[in-house]
Amino acid sequence: MLPTKIAMSQVRSSLQSINLCWLIASATTHLLLCSTPCRAFACATFARTTSITPMASNAHSSNSNMRHSSSMLSSSKSLIVHFPKAKSVQPGTSPVEEQEKRNPIDETCNILVVGGNRGIGLEFVNQCLTSGATVIATHRSEDIPSDLESLQTKHPQKFHSIQMDLSSETSIENAASNLRDMNLGPLTHIIHNAGIYLPGTSFDGTPKGPRDAAPKVDKETLMKTYEINTVAPLLVAQNFVGLMGKRSEALYPVYSFISSKVGSVDDNGSGGAYAYRSSKSALNNIAKSLSADLADTIRVVLLHPGWVKTDMTGGKGLIDTNTSVRGMLNAVESTDSSTSFRFVDYKACQIPW
Amino acid sequence: MLPTKIAMSQVRSSLQSINLCWLIASATTHLLLCSTPCRAFACATFARTTSITPMASNAHSSNSNMRHSSSMLSSSKSLIVHFPKAKSVQPGTSPVEEQEKRNPIDETCNILVVGGNRGIGLEFVNQCLTSGATVIATHRSEDIPSDLESLQTKHPQKFHSIQMDLSSETSIENAASNLRDMNLGPLTHIIHNAGIYLPGTSFDGTPKGPRDAAPKVDKETLMKTYEINTVAPLLVAQNFVGLMGKRSEALYPVYSFISSKVGSVDDNGSGGAYAYRSSKSALNNIAKSLSADLADTIRVVLLHPGWVKTDMTGGKGLIDTNTSVRGMLNAVESTDSSTSFRFVDYKACQIPW
Repeated sequence: MLPTKIAMSQVRSSLQSINLCWLIASATTHLLLCSTPCRAFACATFARTTSITPMASNAHSSNSNMRHSSSMLSSSKSLIVHFPKAKSVQPGTSPVEEQEKRNPIDETCNILVVGGNRGIGLEFVNQCLTSGATVIATHRSEDIPSDLESLQTKHPQKFHSIQMDLSSETSIENAASNLRDMNLGPLTHIIHNAGIYLPGTSFDGTPKGPRDAAPKVDKETLMKTYEINTVAPLLVAQNFVGLMGKRSEALYPVYSFISSKVGSVDDNGSGGAYAYRSSKSALNNIAKSLSADLADTIRVVLLHPGWVKTDMTGGKGLIDTNTSVRGMLNAVESTDSSTSFRFVDYKACQIPW
Repeated sequence: MLPTKIAMSQVRSSLQSINLCWLIASATTHLLLCSTPCRAFACATFARTTSITPMASNAHSSNSNMRHSSSMLSSSKSLIVHFPKAKSVQPGTSPVEEQEKRNPIDETCNILVVGGNRGIGLEFVNQCLTSGATVIATHRSEDIPSDLESLQTKHPQKFHSIQMDLSSETSIENAASNLRDMNLGPLTHIIHNAGIYLPGTSFDGTPKGPRDAAPKVDKETLMKTYEINTVAPLLVAQNFVGLMGKRSEALYPVYSFISSKVGSVDDNGSGGAYAYRSSKSALNNIAKSLSADLADTIRVVLLHPGWVKTDMTGGKGLIDTNTSVRGMLNAVESTDSSTSFRFVDYKACQIPW
């Protein structure tokens, strides 16, 4: 037993150093499409999210390949199944969507941005207004924030704000009622941006792996994070989906949730961040259930904004809100009746679960 | 645009009917190992979970295959990326582990079963006792349940129970303190079984897809489900990990969480069950963070019990607790220092995220 273990360990180590990937063999139309900026190779680490529809001529060859592989497998000698160490998804290894604007944001759109008074949310508001859409931004505070007040002055017909506290079911219900009373027409888009990242993040307050010591996560932090990041998005959906409507047969309303790649179990190679990570994992499955339950009337997309310079990241980050939001809106605009649920970042890279 | 859409839609429909799978091409030692009972073919839907370590002789051929594929990809013509409809993982399409008993449960083990007084938990207790282990079962009620009282009479040296209410941080802290005072020696295993499935499950109370009408999920249901299914497992880990210890250099203590396949975002093709599904998705990422943060001292495994005839399923289900627990213990016993984190069911099938 021991010699086998040593051999396996050595193999594992050498494989990690060469960035072990499995290969996907399929007809050329199955291959991943990398316009830019991600590298163009198919890594099996992501194969589950690469559900690219091949052209008709290849459907049957795909099926015959499958049977061929099956027969290869059943005749192969059994091996012990081991597992490489968990590690984060390597940047640039994701499948990349080619995002055609099949559902463009324009003056026929009514867009609700949940949490729209600063950072990424405010940038969504601005870019949607620039595209000619009517935009309604929600804010938590009782008073209208100054940035939104300025927008109301600048775009009296096109911009509106409503107060909504995501920790209060009554506030969410009232906000929906207030929006209905505005008679702006059906919502073509909801962009749920609001979320929190609280300080308690670590298992026990000590450094772990690559991470410095950080306050220990506790029950209060976990529950508060779930209340805002996971429960509120579902409550908002329950109250606002009835206000959404199609622009045309193909142009389904699009419900976008700003999730985060740290909510990907597959991508979690560094640990920690218990509350935020798990709140986004939970949100991802809520969004998946919504996509199934509401398939007749809306399309749902999960978005990862990248590491953005905002208040939440303390001004750190790799990109500005403009770049992040422009990229995420490309994903929104490429979502129509034929598009199924997926998790995609601001660079059009699909993210595994 | 329209003719293309119609064509794609027809292709998608025909592909669904032939169970569209992508194929994984790799050296034969990369191929999936199916002893029984799952079918032996590799479906890319699962490729991300098939991190099977190949033998040394194939490491370099794997790398050269990868480069070959990369060059094929970069020379391919770009296509629009569409997505097939979300659907559940087809039974029998998972990669299957060959589970060697590298870390056997025997008389040298001390095993804590969290939620051990009925159903799956009680069966874990019984099977571990049969294997000769010392077992500590937790129960929520102040009084010791009759089944556990009988076990204490039958196994006065080998069986112990402690009261622990998972909704109370104080109760969890006290239970850890009580166990420490018992001086039973280091825990070699924790099996976190306790969980709840509350009645409010649906988006709006109406039938959706294949599901009948069911009570609408509300904030209270969501928060209570997260408290027990997601938060409590982390609080228990924070309080009990310090009581765990290795049996030998290779035989790391194993921390098992009973999750559920419905917590898999990838597998969620039918929607609904918002609270339970998302609580398990969140648990899965908490367990992944634990596996990274505690990699020096323990191994973590996520288990799916199957559809088991218990109180939670109202006596319905496909299998009994004996079959489910026997299968899950096979996964536990095949987990040693060389085994990384994974999500596996009672039939040894790996589950995607």
